[in-house]
Amino acid sequence: MCKRALHYPQVETPPPQPFLKSLKNTLNEILFADDPFRKIRNESKTSKKIELVLRHVFPILEWARGYNLDYLKSDVISGITIASLAIPQGISYAQLANLPPILGLYSSFVPPMVYAIMGSSKDLAVGTVAVASLLTAAMLGKEVSAVENPKLYLHLAFTATFFAGLMQTCLGLLRLGFLVEILSHAAIIGFMAGAATVVCLQQLKGLLGLSHFTHSTDVVSVLRSIFSQSHMWRWESGILGCCFLFFLLTTKYISKKRPKLFWISAMAPLVSVIFGSLFVYFLHAQFHGIQIIGELKKGINPPSITHLVFTSPYVTLALKTGIITGVLALAEGIAVGRSFAMYKNYNIDGNKEMIAFGMMNIFGSFSSCYLTTGPFSRSAVNYNAGCKTAVSNVVMAVAVAVTLLFLTPLFFYTPLVVLSSIIIAAMLGLVDYEAAMHLWKLDKFDFFVCLSAFLGVVFGTIEIGLILSVGISVLRLLLFVGRPEIYVMGKIQNTEIFRNIDQYPQATTLSGLIILHIDGPIYFANSSYLRDRIGRWIDEEEEKLRKSEENSLQYIILDLSAVGNIDTSGISMLEEVNKILGRRDLKLVIANPGAELMKKLSKSKFIETIGKDWIHLTVAEAVSACDHMLQTAKPDSPEKISGVPEFNNV
Amino acid sequence: MCKRALHYPQVETPPPQPFLKSLKNTLNEILFADDPFRKIRNESKTSKKIELVLRHVFPILEWARGYNLDYLKSDVISGITIASLAIPQGISYAQLANLPPILGLYSSFVPPMVYAIMGSSKDLAVGTVAVASLLTAAMLGKEVSAVENPKLYLHLAFTATFFAGLMQTCLGLLRLGFLVEILSHAAIIGFMAGAATVVCLQQLKGLLGLSHFTHSTDVVSVLRSIFSQSHMWRWESGILGCCFLFFLLTTKYISKKRPKLFWISAMAPLVSVIFGSLFVYFLHAQFHGIQIIGELKKGINPPSITHLVFTSPYVTLALKTGIITGVLALAEGIAVGRSFAMYKNYNIDGNKEMIAFGMMNIFGSFSSCYLTTGPFSRSAVNYNAGCKTAVSNVVMAVAVAVTLLFLTPLFFYTPLVVLSSIIIAAMLGLVDYEAAMHLWKLDKFDFFVCLSAFLGVVFGTIEIGLILSVGISVLRLLLFVGRPEIYVMGKIQNTEIFRNIDQYPQATTLSGLIILHIDGPIYFANSSYLRDRIGRWIDEEEEKLRKSEENSLQYIILDLSAVGNIDTSGISMLEEVNKILGRRDLKLVIANPGAELMKKLSKSKFIETIGKDWIHLTVAEAVSACDHMLQTAKPDSPEKISGVPEFNNV
Repeated sequence: MCKRALHYPQVETPPPQPFLKSLKNTLNEILFADDPFRKIRNESKTSKKIELVLRHVFPILEWARGYNLDYLKSDVISGITIASLAIPQGISYAQLANLPPILGLYSSFVPPMVYAIMGSSKDLAVGTVAVASLLTAAMLGKEVSAVENPKLYLHLAFTATFFAGLMQTCLGLLRLGFLVEILSHAAIIGFMAGAATVVCLQQLKGLLGLSHFTHSTDVVSVLRSIFSQSHMWRWESGILGCCFLFFLLTTKYISKKRPKLFWISAMAPLVSVIFGSLFVYFLHAQFHGIQIIGELKKGINPPSITHLVFTSPYVTLALKTGIITGVLALAEGIAVGRSFAMYKNYNIDGNKEMIAFGMMNIFGSFSSCYLTTGPFSRSAVNYNAGCKTAVSNVVMAVAVAVTLLFLTPLFFYTPLVVLSSIIIAAMLGLVDYEAAMHLWKLDKFDFFVCLSAFLGVVFGTIEIGLILSVGISVLRLLLFVGRPEIYVMGKIQNTEIFRNIDQYPQATTLSGLIILHIDGPIYFANSSYLRDRIGRWIDEEEEKLRKSEENSLQYIILDLSAVGNIDTSGISMLEEVNKILGRRDLKLVIANPGAELMKKLSKSKFIETIGKDWIHLTVAEAVSACDHMLQTAKPDSPEKISGVPEFNNV
Repeated sequence: MCKRALHYPQVETPPPQPFLKSLKNTLNEILFADDPFRKIRNESKTSKKIELVLRHVFPILEWARGYNLDYLKSDVISGITIASLAIPQGISYAQLANLPPILGLYSSFVPPMVYAIMGSSKDLAVGTVAVASLLTAAMLGKEVSAVENPKLYLHLAFTATFFAGLMQTCLGLLRLGFLVEILSHAAIIGFMAGAATVVCLQQLKGLLGLSHFTHSTDVVSVLRSIFSQSHMWRWESGILGCCFLFFLLTTKYISKKRPKLFWISAMAPLVSVIFGSLFVYFLHAQFHGIQIIGELKKGINPPSITHLVFTSPYVTLALKTGIITGVLALAEGIAVGRSFAMYKNYNIDGNKEMIAFGMMNIFGSFSSCYLTTGPFSRSAVNYNAGCKTAVSNVVMAVAVAVTLLFLTPLFFYTPLVVLSSIIIAAMLGLVDYEAAMHLWKLDKFDFFVCLSAFLGVVFGTIEIGLILSVGISVLRLLLFVGRPEIYVMGKIQNTEIFRNIDQYPQATTLSGLIILHIDGPIYFANSSYLRDRIGRWIDEEEEKLRKSEENSLQYIILDLSAVGNIDTSGISMLEEVNKILGRRDLKLVIANPGAELMKKLSKSKFIETIGKDWIHLTVAEAVSACDHMLQTAKPDSPEKISGVPEFNNV
């Protein structure tokens, strides 16, 4: 029908694959994209295989063999540094979660030990985080009061931690780690900024020495609660808080300007706690409106496995709390692990990390800990302090254990307001204006996702912010598939290359034919749109030609290079377009369909319908075939009728 | 740095657009893809513009001018034919919805008139449909019993119809018609087959003359209900039903074999009703276990606008029912309108049709009608009977009105079992085995969607089936974006063309470089995957090279032709990949990024990072630049270290 240049091969249809094999391949791509067992599979000896499996499950076996005294020195230094940060932060965040302050210390003892055995990051420092703490308080607090029913509340927190750990382990084992990816970078920026704002607002309670406070976290309720109690504000507490906040922010500023002085900001919280306690102790400030921590129990983590409540009517509440906080904790921990791994040029397997996080939370929930992960601030300090391996986590755990065994009485006089200052100083770092501005500059939609997460958290609840940002992010994916771009291609002068005429203004269209490029898969969600849009391109082109009295349109070349896949609705759409074009006396020509497309098009007989000769390997080839036909003869369809019915006639 | 052939232009970055303009363009593409106002916009005179708007809103103004006697003759014939189908079907479906049978006739009077004025299809015949009727019964029946509280039930049905109409109108006005597209073709096939099965099972009640029956629609409950009452079965009713069913199916078979005899199956329901009624009348069969319709009120539609209940506690129930049945009705009506429009080569504007459907349901709910749409069976009869315009709907409405005014007493003796046979005969046509087989052959995933819709409806409820099929369809879209294909390209011999080496086995890879093609957009949902997958390709390639002792890998060419869009997570991923490659002493080269990509990459300074010279218009050009570098000099990076750290080291 049309002569093709001899050196162009035909478009190939790949050989059909048995259904089960292709299903297996697909599942492999979804679940084992990074092929984690490649090394193990390639090994022939069974004993070696077992060793590799063990080393895969317990990375400590991998790095412990090369461990030496130099490493130990670095790890001890960084471990003690992060312990000095972990103790005051732990107490503060436990307060934020409405849990007994001692839990913050417990949570810096068992989980880091577990992580040191199973985790694959060398830089991650394990501990509790502010956002998950606040979220625990907000979610559990809605149904169970931490003041009226502290025991049930505590047990529910353990149960939620257990569920979080279980879910994390399962996600990892089932290799479903990719589910965490629905939290896009933009969503996390907005969410974190919102959560930081909310956490800071919560600290106004401690800063102003208030004893009653709202349970809501949104800015309106919090501000109303604060200003309705303005007669209860304690100026002593406020001034003390501001002083410490100033001190902490100054040390942060110094460390930021001179990264070598990182230890100044790392030590600042402990220094604040010591000075605050001394201040209260010597001035008896607890009698002048300064609230203090009070007595902390001595001794390391008591077991709590018997406290998990699976029969209570609140078990679904614990489950829900566990899942949401667990996902958040995972997202933060894995992102942190990945970032530092990138600096040091090693790789982290997300699914393996999930199992490590999961196990550390499961064991944590058995030993009076609540939800832990790898917080950014603590890990950054660990990294800057020069940690070499996860031994720094062990050193921190030992330091915390020593504190638990001997030093808890020292915290009796620690003022709550110091803890509030520590939290605020830590939180302000999470509000990342610059990143948000960067999003605005780069990608308006991402900025919108970020903004809605922020506003959702600040004016609604943390969950609303999460749902909004995830929902909008997913909507964007659907919108991409639902409205793929479709553009006209033109020939770039002096070449055989065809490109988007909007991007390359020097590209020229050819007379008698129009080349349309579809920039996405053809699915049910976009097939109507594509049909309409193709029709509109042709209408517009014909109108233009009618005005300019040029050659009439005869060929429509569809460049399918970027059409990754097609479903049955898409195939019907192509058939429909082909029929409509046929009636309008236009010929459909296909260029460069991919493997998946060719399989389906040939199975559906579409290729036979339009003719194998009208499917070309490149746009250039399709154009030359059409040109050849235009110059030698009319296409093999009935002669053109003058009044072609219009495509979109109403 | 590298010399490019002179005739290749650079990759262009399109000029930046003001934010609001690009937002407007995007919204236009989403909402006005078919550019419905083009004609109006191009018109300069205001009077002409108003005329065009009116003709746009009321298509009757468009076609009424060309109407002639020949058309009228055809329309009268087809109108009477569909009326003869509409009357028995209307009564049957109203029974299915647990509504008074007369409502079925009312619903074939007002809505067709409205549609004739506003609808743009020439072939659509308006009426009630079985699936929506059953769904109404199932949803409303869950909370309000049609037997114990018939008045409230009736009013809720009107209210649901009103809400359905309102939603349809709003979708059309807001040009959100594309939302209906989430029901893929595959989902509809499975859903319809499931619904038909369920409807047929429901008819066993009438066929066996049972008076008590379960309210559930799933197959297990229905069968249990039937077999637990086996002592109540009426054999008279059963035999009569089977006879009529046999008659109806035979006529269907004849019409299917000889499309010219379409009127045989079109008339069969009315003939069955007449014979059934005569049978009962002469043999007094109503005293022998044959249930009859009984008295039908004379007179056309009474107004029902005052019966709409917006204050009742059940208003949310009505709203929910209205939205779900309304979406289903829309999906069916628009698909039917589109199919017939395609046969006759005219085009239907989905959004305009939605407004027409919506208005006909709103007016319907004001005049004692329940939900109507364009059922496939009736429209097919209309088409086959040779209808020319929507006047056939008017003729049908008039015929139904005459029936309502004078002929209702004739239906007194009509046996219910005949109605059941009519429904079963109509429903069997909806189970489309062949289409399902076709799906299996073409696209396993679509078959899975279809199957889950079917099983969800049959073993769960109609809603479960809907949610399952929509959920799985959407999951597929997300999976496409989440796991885009990424493959290695090779050079097709004797050409400058690079293609997938799996599709074109004759394509050969080149030494020293690997060309990866990413077949989808780069978004947060896939950026980790792509990073891992690129790493794995490189690892595998290096391993292969190490074994064969060939040239070591030096260049990674990423072909971005098919990457339609990128978000900030995607850009970070590319930056990360570039860094990792840099550390492994590999150079990243980009080929053919599209307009959107170039915009974002240049804004993010990524282009500066990798160097503008490393971005090429085609893969061929990128390869020749790399080849040039490989032959003349080492790339401008530090000399290769022997023990390159592995990408995926654990």
